[in-house]
Amino acid sequence: MDNAEKISSENRIVVRVPGTSANCGSGFDCLGLAVTIYNDLDLTLLEDERLIIESSGEGAETIPADEKNIVWKSARLVLERANLAEKFKGAIIRMENHVPMSRGLGSSAAAIVAGLFAANEIIGKPFNKNELLKFATEIEGHPDNVAPAIFGGFTVSVVDKGLVQTFSFLPKNKFKLVVAVPNFHLSTRTARQVLPKTVPLKDAIFNISRASMLVAALIEGKEKFLASAFDDALHQPYRKNLVPGMSEVFDAAKRAGALGVALSGAGPCLIAFSAANKHIENEIATEMVQAFKKNDVQADALILNLDTRGAYVIGN
Amino acid sequence: MDNAEKISSENRIVVRVPGTSANCGSGFDCLGLAVTIYNDLDLTLLEDERLIIESSGEGAETIPADEKNIVWKSARLVLERANLAEKFKGAIIRMENHVPMSRGLGSSAAAIVAGLFAANEIIGKPFNKNELLKFATEIEGHPDNVAPAIFGGFTVSVVDKGLVQTFSFLPKNKFKLVVAVPNFHLSTRTARQVLPKTVPLKDAIFNISRASMLVAALIEGKEKFLASAFDDALHQPYRKNLVPGMSEVFDAAKRAGALGVALSGAGPCLIAFSAANKHIENEIATEMVQAFKKNDVQADALILNLDTRGAYVIGN
Repeated sequence: MDNAEKISSENRIVVRVPGTSANCGSGFDCLGLAVTIYNDLDLTLLEDERLIIESSGEGAETIPADEKNIVWKSARLVLERANLAEKFKGAIIRMENHVPMSRGLGSSAAAIVAGLFAANEIIGKPFNKNELLKFATEIEGHPDNVAPAIFGGFTVSVVDKGLVQTFSFLPKNKFKLVVAVPNFHLSTRTARQVLPKTVPLKDAIFNISRASMLVAALIEGKEKFLASAFDDALHQPYRKNLVPGMSEVFDAAKRAGALGVALSGAGPCLIAFSAANKHIENEIATEMVQAFKKNDVQADALILNLDTRGAYVIGN
Repeated sequence: MDNAEKISSENRIVVRVPGTSANCGSGFDCLGLAVTIYNDLDLTLLEDERLIIESSGEGAETIPADEKNIVWKSARLVLERANLAEKFKGAIIRMENHVPMSRGLGSSAAAIVAGLFAANEIIGKPFNKNELLKFATEIEGHPDNVAPAIFGGFTVSVVDKGLVQTFSFLPKNKFKLVVAVPNFHLSTRTARQVLPKTVPLKDAIFNISRASMLVAALIEGKEKFLASAFDDALHQPYRKNLVPGMSEVFDAAKRAGALGVALSGAGPCLIAFSAANKHIENEIATEMVQAFKKNDVQADALILNLDTRGAYVIGN
């Protein structure tokens, strides 16, 4: 850090961005939530053209350390939109990543939001969160993960004629989130390719009713209405073969008392929702890992809470 | 009424049931709301086999006055489930109907709920509202209208393995509901037949996101999030040709300031949602009727409020 401080302490900031889980089963391509696992970005904008990128933690060895770096691309976008790309031509980027990569916990969204959010802070916040959401969606292609990474809590996002609108809320229910993380990667692209172009109308209605029920039950804190609200007919059935043991892990989580369980984003992580006051999150974690093991998949479990604030500044 | 009173005043009740509007655009086959237009049922259960049925008001001339009468069928179902069908073999049914028939305002649901609710009250309420919902869904085939007719307010219904679960809520937003009622009937069956069996996945996502947003924005009272929340891609586009001028009426309502506008149930009524504090419901009504007229459709307008209580007893 010494090097950065010597160059310019005023053009530097450290931000923290949560990992996220998109879809929640029924809320395909629309619902998301932020979880208490984080990537930290220490960003210094430079007036010269040097680009110094250092990563530690999850996937550090695979993160590009040049202009292709997604944090730098995102920071650049903010600078361009603020007409400051000529002023700040380089950067020192230090990332410490805890969000597992390519597992369905929004690692790329976290990187994008970190770059946008940090650059915006350094240059005096010309953009509000909704504008950052717009930029982030441009880069990521969809708002599912970037929205909760920015706003925290649960999010409902609608894309209308290219414009994104996100509603964020904190549920009255208190959850523990149990995430089973298999030891293999799954690209969002592969997970998209297995989806059909058309679906039965009755399956669409299946999800509309459950996603609506999920949002209502969460906002009002009515646990009994969650019973089938996480269930999905539009994407998980098609992605089942990409995550060996998925159905068995779902069943195991429910048997252990989970309120609901879903593929996290495009997978392969699976996320179970457990009532915090039941204190059964450890049992659910054990059962999920065991069920994966029976299907020859090695998995770890994370026990997380809902992140309630989204991206924020932790130092400068 | 004299006749009924002479026979038995204790086996008699008068109930009021609201009209309802299903779907709300994006919430196809899942969302509904109750409105302040009502059918009243004066029911007397008889121990002998006489069946006296009198209707006044909307559609009175078309309502069967024999065993096929839907109010009687519904009352019979409650009696059968309570093992009282042998005790009460006949009835005096007097209906005063204000809900227009076969227009998408839940007239058949109102009749079903009236019969169930009134019979249940007379025999000492052996069934709660959720059980009446189950019976009503059995008869009607879907919960879209019977749910708000029973519970009032807005409702979200999920059908899971044949069982219905309904969540009812009152929105923080205060609405005026403008219903344009064309002077022709449309059977739900015809309106169902024009729907495709499969739909583009992107259209399913269109509705999932908007229905979720609609529920969130209503519960939290956030008007700005309603902007595209009523929009639909799954049923209204296919039903457009059954309601001449539908698109034009939608446009007219929005131009006049409606927050959203949708086909009411399977139509042909169209329902616009207007912020109560704007006091523009009359203008919206005028514009909707005018737009219908330009398409050679004669229509009346009803200006209604949200019914907040559902079926209730008004006398005995």
